Amino acid sequence: MFPTYEHYKQERAALIDRDRSLRADYAQVFSETELKADRIVRSIRTAEAASIWGAKHPEIAHPFPGMEFLTGRSIIVKTKLFEILSKMPKGALLHVHLDATVNAKTLLGLALEEPAMHVRVPQRLTRDNIASVLMEFKALPRGMVTDSESYMYGLTGAGYAPNTWVPLRAARETFDVNLGGPEGFDLWVVGVLSIDPSEAYGTHNTVDKIWEKFASIFQVSGGLIYFAPVWRKYLYEFLRSSVEDGISYIEARAMFFMEYMVGEDGMQNVPHREWLLMFDEVQNALKEELKQQARESEFIGARIIYTTLRFITTEELDWYCEDCISLKKEFPHLIAGFDLAGPENILLPLIDYAEGLLRFRERQREEGVDIPLILHAGETCGDGTHADMNLYDAVLLGSQRIGHGFSLVKHPKLMEACREKGILIEVCPISNEVLRLTSAMPMHPLPILMNNGIPIAISSDDPGVFGNVGLTFDMYQVLVSSEVTGLATLRELARDSLKYSTLGPKDKEEALDSWQRHWEIFVEWVADLSS
Amino acid sequence: MFPTYEHYKQERAALIDRDRSLRADYAQVFSETELKADRIVRSIRTAEAASIWGAKHPEIAHPFPGMEFLTGRSIIVKTKLFEILSKMPKGALLHVHLDATVNAKTLLGLALEEPAMHVRVPQRLTRDNIASVLMEFKALPRGMVTDSESYMYGLTGAGYAPNTWVPLRAARETFDVNLGGPEGFDLWVVGVLSIDPSEAYGTHNTVDKIWEKFASIFQVSGGLIYFAPVWRKYLYEFLRSSVEDGISYIEARAMFFMEYMVGEDGMQNVPHREWLLMFDEVQNALKEELKQQARESEFIGARIIYTTLRFITTEELDWYCEDCISLKKEFPHLIAGFDLAGPENILLPLIDYAEGLLRFRERQREEGVDIPLILHAGETCGDGTHADMNLYDAVLLGSQRIGHGFSLVKHPKLMEACREKGILIEVCPISNEVLRLTSAMPMHPLPILMNNGIPIAISSDDPGVFGNVGLTFDMYQVLVSSEVTGLATLRELARDSLKYSTLGPKDKEEALDSWQRHWEIFVEWVADLSS
Repeated sequence: MFPTYEHYKQERAALIDRDRSLRADYAQVFSETELKADRIVRSIRTAEAASIWGAKHPEIAHPFPGMEFLTGRSIIVKTKLFEILSKMPKGALLHVHLDATVNAKTLLGLALEEPAMHVRVPQRLTRDNIASVLMEFKALPRGMVTDSESYMYGLTGAGYAPNTWVPLRAARETFDVNLGGPEGFDLWVVGVLSIDPSEAYGTHNTVDKIWEKFASIFQVSGGLIYFAPVWRKYLYEFLRSSVEDGISYIEARAMFFMEYMVGEDGMQNVPHREWLLMFDEVQNALKEELKQQARESEFIGARIIYTTLRFITTEELDWYCEDCISLKKEFPHLIAGFDLAGPENILLPLIDYAEGLLRFRERQREEGVDIPLILHAGETCGDGTHADMNLYDAVLLGSQRIGHGFSLVKHPKLMEACREKGILIEVCPISNEVLRLTSAMPMHPLPILMNNGIPIAISSDDPGVFGNVGLTFDMYQVLVSSEVTGLATLRELARDSLKYSTLGPKDKEEALDSWQRHWEIFVEWVADLSS
Repeated sequence: MFPTYEHYKQERAALIDRDRSLRADYAQVFSETELKADRIVRSIRTAEAASIWGAKHPEIAHPFPGMEFLTGRSIIVKTKLFEILSKMPKGALLHVHLDATVNAKTLLGLALEEPAMHVRVPQRLTRDNIASVLMEFKALPRGMVTDSESYMYGLTGAGYAPNTWVPLRAARETFDVNLGGPEGFDLWVVGVLSIDPSEAYGTHNTVDKIWEKFASIFQVSGGLIYFAPVWRKYLYEFLRSSVEDGISYIEARAMFFMEYMVGEDGMQNVPHREWLLMFDEVQNALKEELKQQARESEFIGARIIYTTLRFITTEELDWYCEDCISLKKEFPHLIAGFDLAGPENILLPLIDYAEGLLRFRERQREEGVDIPLILHAGETCGDGTHADMNLYDAVLLGSQRIGHGFSLVKHPKLMEACREKGILIEVCPISNEVLRLTSAMPMHPLPILMNNGIPIAISSDDPGVFGNVGLTFDMYQVLVSSEVTGLATLRELARDSLKYSTLGPKDKEEALDSWQRHWEIFVEWVADLSS
């Protein structure tokens, strides 16, 4: 079979080559500079696996590259590799939920600027209940006088009447010193609005339990975010921080579940079209700002994937589809697609909406618009469960990309379909891990997708909640968990994120050209690191 | 595309069907009884997922079907599903390490029967060091007088001189009451020789750390097991308990790393050929016993996969290969194959032994024997690491089956090769989970292998260490973690375990016929459970 060991080694090299031939980074042309940058990055990775990850960290029991993000984050930010990746032009951010894009501390800061913003709790806050009581936020109409006593007692005073609205700033200033005073207030709010390691890896350490925490975050944060003045600043902060991270284009999922947002006057009367108007104003303002700094090539723009949740009735679906069509007609440049989101293990299966979504397509044809489906599917560890089966529907309904597709790797024919039809999978490594689909990055199925030639874009999902704002953290986790993947692979992932966006051909070409120029500057910089 | 919703549903059913068409349970003929038994098992699974796994268990924080085995074991044994599976004819056990097949408590009991067995510790055992000190066991020659003081002080008395041998029974009887007395001694030994939940899921919660614990177990237990009188009883206990669990045939990996075993006279002078003679005697005695109970059809027999470890030099490999050839010539019915084992992330890569293994094949040809390679490979979460790359060598070297193959799912061309060449993967679900390759069974890649039509046998690996003696526990974990897999699937797994064994054609046919008869009785019994 093998006349010599030499022959064996040749056959081995050929087999490895065939095995990797479907990868996005296979048989691509790389410049000398790119190859050098790739080598430098690999050698830093190897060195830091020993010097940084292999060192003792008193606070962290089991450090390793690709470890649980919430625990390992403090180590990640110390690495040279992280610093390098933070400068990389990332291409597009294709999977992010707009109401979870800004970290909790910043969001609270934005809300504190608004006198209309109030907070209440169902019972007076004490040392005993502070760990479990959830607050409710709401912007109240200017005219609506709140009880002056509420200023006096805040949420922690003995006289606090349950469920009384307290102005946000007053609640912070009067916060009981035994609960930490104003800083204690901040910690309490941030704790409710984000996931900490003890929750993800301790008290809530299963997919379903961590989703309970996750759902409670959205329930609470909505009151802060869906207030027009906060919403504007929030959008700005999201877009600005994305651009700083090297993201040049965004398709964000906006949850149009609530019919109205609270306006400046404190009335819940801002319709969906005005959300989009604000979105456009904010991004145009940022573009103008960047232009004045001669940085306009760093930001192509942002669009919205109209999203609702999988507990609506099929009748309600029709309403949302019509709403989406009318928005698309008014803002063709802003509406990128349509999605139904939510915890798939728990909510309704996609098949329940299939008939409605087929009707949606028919209606689009009648109205002369084109709104691609960009559906969540297979965000599960289930095998043959409803959530897993959602993948069949996503593919058959013609979803242009698939959100998560975590369980896709179980399905040989669906993988084939994704490869052949060019259905990109929006892979969210940190989200998958924090939501306990995988225990750490080395156990993530990403290499299976890559080796099967499925188009992939790395995404951050809910960076405001997980603490992975930008794409650097997710890219880092991907890069340190594989010896096959290198900087050259990340080039292809970044490029594919633009290629598989919903941008029109001309815009896409411009976006790719612009990305290419920034990429070349970046690899020059990396290649010079060794000298 | 879909003129009607009806048409959509038809296309969906067809796609699901194509997606599953490579599975072992696809398009098989099942009797009415089998189908009924399968339905009953599925409905019990669904009911118990809610009634038992969904209930509160005060001691267990996050119960769910397929959860961490060491924590969930106490719930598993309470289920009806477990009771049913314990009666299932399992077919062959193809991946098990002979020196980790009997639970620690039983092994200690066997050793206590031998007056020659001694124990020592490097320092007197106290409350402060008992959690970290490892003991050493050894059978000493009868003539070798041990210091009479050792009887007095035991391991815990103030006068114990470090590293003094104490007879095992005396050590137990004199064990300090403050350390729990004799029962404390048992707990200490069992603790050293097995992995508990706090180690696997707490202190040692990474692949590399848990391997350190794992390696220390083998280091200690060898002193008990590799003593001929214990070895015989140990083998008997292993074979007997396997048959009780419905296993009818075994190919066990025996570690021939140590050149000699300690004989009855306490001298380390029992050569490899006598290990095999004892192995044969013990299995023949069991067969005789079963025959007298008219149960001979329950046990076809057991064979040995000659195994050494991946830290030997290539020169040493030649020695082991020659040793294996001469044993095969003397005991052709006992030697089933050849393997190199050990923690792949740490030890030498298979490529280092490739040249030697090619020579081994040449030597077999010269000697007119056939010893298939049955190699460990890909027992790792690595992507492109040495351990992951071992899979290329296993396939190219013509391994007849692959032990673990955990990372095989990353390699489309290797999966294809396994499917086309009929290379069975010995999947060890509980082992993979306890050794932290996967956090729990729903995250295990088994469904990927199944849906890609790779032949699979479920195996227990090191049941004495993990507490999964037999195959029932592993089958349970597999069955509760998938909605696709049913009793019908387990039939195919059991059948394939015999089909892909190294039995000759005639023996294989008999083994399959015998299994079939037991299977029919079993499904009749299950089918009657509903009435």
